[in-house]
Amino acid sequence: MSTAGQVIRCRAAVAWESGKPLSIEEVEVAPPQKDEVRIKILFTSLCHTDVYFWDAKGQNPLFPRILGHEAGGIVESVGEGVTDLKPGDHVLPIFTGECKECPHCLSEESNMCDLLRINTDRGEMINDGKSRFSINGKPIYHFLGTSTFSEYTVVHVGQVAKINPEAPLDKVCVLSCGMSTGFGATVNVAKPKKGQSVAIFGLGAVGLAAAEGARVSGASRIIGVDLNPSRFEQAKKFGVTEFVNPKDYNKPVQEAIVEMTGGGVDRSVECTGSIQAMISAFECVHDGWGVAVLVGVPNKDDAFKTHPVNLLNEKTVKGTFFGNYKPRSDIPAVVEKYMNKELELDKFITHTVPFSEINKAFELMLAGEGLRCVIRMDE
Amino acid sequence: MSTAGQVIRCRAAVAWESGKPLSIEEVEVAPPQKDEVRIKILFTSLCHTDVYFWDAKGQNPLFPRILGHEAGGIVESVGEGVTDLKPGDHVLPIFTGECKECPHCLSEESNMCDLLRINTDRGEMINDGKSRFSINGKPIYHFLGTSTFSEYTVVHVGQVAKINPEAPLDKVCVLSCGMSTGFGATVNVAKPKKGQSVAIFGLGAVGLAAAEGARVSGASRIIGVDLNPSRFEQAKKFGVTEFVNPKDYNKPVQEAIVEMTGGGVDRSVECTGSIQAMISAFECVHDGWGVAVLVGVPNKDDAFKTHPVNLLNEKTVKGTFFGNYKPRSDIPAVVEKYMNKELELDKFITHTVPFSEINKAFELMLAGEGLRCVIRMDE
Ligand SMILES: NC(=O)c1ccc[n+]([C@@H]2O[C@H](COP(=O)([O-])OP(=O)(O)OC[C@H]3O[C@@H](n4cnc5c(N)ncnc54)[C@H](O)[C@@H]3O)[C@@H](O)[C@H]2O)c1
Ligand SMILES: NC(=O)c1ccc[n+]([C@@H]2O[C@H](COP(=O)([O-])OP(=O)(O)OC[C@H]3O[C@@H](n4cnc5c(N)ncnc54)[C@H](O)[C@@H]3O)[C@@H](O)[C@H]2O)c1
Ligand SMILES: [Zn+2]
Ligand SMILES: [Zn+2]
Ligand SMILES: [Zn+2]
Ligand SMILES: [Zn+2]
Repeated sequence: MSTAGQVIRCRAAVAWESGKPLSIEEVEVAPPQKDEVRIKILFTSLCHTDVYFWDAKGQNPLFPRILGHEAGGIVESVGEGVTDLKPGDHVLPIFTGECKECPHCLSEESNMCDLLRINTDRGEMINDGKSRFSINGKPIYHFLGTSTFSEYTVVHVGQVAKINPEAPLDKVCVLSCGMSTGFGATVNVAKPKKGQSVAIFGLGAVGLAAAEGARVSGASRIIGVDLNPSRFEQAKKFGVTEFVNPKDYNKPVQEAIVEMTGGGVDRSVECTGSIQAMISAFECVHDGWGVAVLVGVPNKDDAFKTHPVNLLNEKTVKGTFFGNYKPRSDIPAVVEKYMNKELELDKFITHTVPFSEINKAFELMLAGEGLRCVIRMDE
Repeated sequence: MSTAGQVIRCRAAVAWESGKPLSIEEVEVAPPQKDEVRIKILFTSLCHTDVYFWDAKGQNPLFPRILGHEAGGIVESVGEGVTDLKPGDHVLPIFTGECKECPHCLSEESNMCDLLRINTDRGEMINDGKSRFSINGKPIYHFLGTSTFSEYTVVHVGQVAKINPEAPLDKVCVLSCGMSTGFGATVNVAKPKKGQSVAIFGLGAVGLAAAEGARVSGASRIIGVDLNPSRFEQAKKFGVTEFVNPKDYNKPVQEAIVEMTGGGVDRSVECTGSIQAMISAFECVHDGWGVAVLVGVPNKDDAFKTHPVNLLNEKTVKGTFFGNYKPRSDIPAVVEKYMNKELELDKFITHTVPFSEINKAFELMLAGEGLRCVIRMDE
C-alpha cells in the first residue's frame, strides 16, 4: 500500500534542548511539496557539525530540531515537479544543494548554490517556510534541509544525489558529508602536486579523508596534527606519515611545523572547527606557494586573525564546503570511485549502533573515539 | 678614466631622521664586492614604500639611510664573480632578488628568493654585513638593497634586471617597482577572466597599474576605490569604469560593493597599505569563486581580521610581492611589452623634478597628487 501523499508516522530522534540526549519520538512527516522528495533513511552517521548545533555553544540554538545530515536512503515519494527522481531510487541527501540554474551552479568553481547552499539557521523548508515534521501538530525544526535522524525525512530535490543502486548504503552514506568533504578539500581545492608535503589539522573522519586525498595525490609527507593522541595510531592506516600534537610544544604549533619542514608545508587542510587550528594551518604553509584550505565549521563569534605580512609573503588561504563537489552532478561519480576500489570507505566506519542507541554515537564523538559511527535506522 | 675599483664620491639624498626632508650630501660609494654591481643611477622615482620607511611611523626606524628603489641606470663596474653583467649595461635595480638557485627561484609559483627576498630591516650588503655608503667614514644604511636616491649605488647582482638598451630609462624606471607590481598582481595573481569584475583599492600608481592589468585582461567592470576623490578623474584614463569613495557610505565599503555587484566582485586587488582596505578588499569578493590579492605594505602592528565564515564561503585571499615577477628572468620581457606598445607607462609619470628637488616628490605623494614623480639624477 503506497504511503505517497499521506502523512507518515515514524520514529525520529528529537533534540528538545541544547546538549540533552536526543529522545526517540513518534513524529508525523508530511508529504513532499513542490520540488521536494520524501526519503526513507536506512543509514545515517554522525558528523561533528551535528554536535555543534546540538550543544549550540558556539552556534544559534534552534529547538526542538531533528538533526542529522550524513545518510543514505531510498526515495519513498516525490512532490510536484520532481522529474529526475522516482520512488525506489537510492539516494544520498546532502546538506548543500544544487539548483543547476544559478550563477554558482553554472560556475565551474563554486558549489555554493544561491537557492540551496548550506543554511544552518533555517529550520523550515523553503517552499512554504514551514516544517514537514510535527508531534501532535507542534512543528519540529529541520536541520540543514536534511534531518536524517528520522526514519523518513523530506528534502529539496536539489539536495539529493541519485546514486548507483548497487552501492551499499551502509558504507556510501559517509560520502553524504564527511568523506566527500575531506577528500574533495584536498583533491579539488588544496591540489597538492606529487611529492609535496601536506599538513592535516584534525584527524577525525573529515581530516583522515583529507589525508586519503593527499595520499592519492602522491604527497611525500602527510603530517597529522591533533590534540588527541589516541588519533595517531589510527591515522597510520590513512597514510599519515608524521604526527604533531600541539600540546607537546611550548610554542605555536605552526612554528614547530615550519621548523620540521624547513620553511613550511606546501599545503594544509584544516578539519577541526577550532579557530586556533585555522590560524595555525594558515601560518604553517610555506611562503611563496603555500596554500591553506579551511574546512572546519567555526563558532559564530570566532575571528581569523593573522599579520597581513603572512599573506603578503605569497601564501594563500581559502575555504570550502563539501570539498567543492556539486552534490547532484559530482557525487554519483565519487560513489563509483568507491565501487571501483579507487577510494576506501570501510576503514572510516569504526562503530555502528541501532537507531535506539543514537546517543552512543554522540558519546563516542565527544570522547574523540573512533571515526564514523553508522546508525542503523531499522533497529 | 675608469672609476672601477675606486671609491666614488657623488651626491646622494640622505634621510638623517624619520620624517625630516632628505638632504643632498656628498657620499663615498665603495667599489662592488663579490656578486655586486655598482650602478650609475640616471632616473629614480618615488614609491609609497619609500615614504613608509622615511616617516617610519608604522615601520622600524633605521637611520641615516639612503632610500629609493624604483630606478633605471647603467652599470659602472662589477665585482668578483659577476659574469652576466658588464659596465655599460642598462639595468633596473629591483627591491627583491633572484639567485636562480634556491627553491623559490626554481619554483614556478614563487619569486621570494631565499637569499635576496625583500628585507626592509636590513641596512647592509649581505656579502660582508657592511654598508657601501659612507660620509667621512661614517656608514649610511642601505634600503631594500637598492638605495637609488644616489648618483651611484651598489646592488647585489641578483637584484639587477638587464634590459634592452634602447628602452628609455626615464620611462621604464617605473617598471623597477610600482608598475610591474600592480600589473603583475592582476595578470599573474588575481588572473581575472574575460568579462569578470575587478575592484582596485587605492588609485595611486600601483593601483592604476593593477587597473591596467584588469583592462588588458578584458574585465567588464573595473571599480576603483579611493579615499581621495581627486584620484577619480585621473583613473578614467586607466580604464576604471566606476568609483567608490568609502567616505561616501555610512557602512563598510565592502557592503556597498557587494550591493553594487549583486554579490561581490570576482577579483579585487588592494594597493593602499591600509589594513582596513585589505580587509574590505577581501570581504568584497564574491563567495564561491572570489579572489582577493593584497599588495600594500602593512604597518608592522597591523592585524588582518575577518570572520572565518568569509573564508569558508569559498573565497580566497593571497598576497604578492612585485606582482609575482622574477626580477631577472621576467622583467626584460615586461620592458619589451612597453617597447611593443602593449603596455603604457608614460601616463603614470605625472611629474618630474631634478635631484636637487627630491623633497618635492615626497610632498606630492603626501598630498596624494599625481602618480609617479621621476627624479632626474643629472640635474
Ligand atoms: N566545510 C564543510 O563542508 C564541512 C563538512 C563536514 C564537516 N565539517 C567540519 O569539519 C570538522 C571535522 O569534522 P569531523 O566530523 O571529522 O570531527 P571530529 O570530531 O571527528 O574530528 C575533529 C578532530 O579535530 C581535533 N581537534 C580539535 N581541535 C583541534 C586543534 N586546535 N588542533 C588540532 N586538532 C584539533 C579533535 O581532537 C578531533 O580529532 C568539524 O568542524 C565539522 O563541523 C565541515
Ligand atoms: N607588494 C609589493 O611588492 C609592493 C610594491 C610597491 C608598492 N607596494 C605598496 O603598494 C601600495 C601603493 O603604493 P603607491 O606607490 O601606489 O602609493 P600611493 O600613495 O601613490 O597610492 C595609494 C592610494 O591608496 C589610497 N588609500 C589609502 N588608504 C585607503 C583606504 N583605506 N581605502 C581606499 N584607498 C586608500 C590613497 O588615497 C592613495 O591614492 C603601498 O602600500 C606600497 O607600499 C607594494
Ligand atoms: Zn557533516
Ligand atoms: Zn544553484
Ligand atoms: Zn615600490
Ligand atoms: Zn633564490
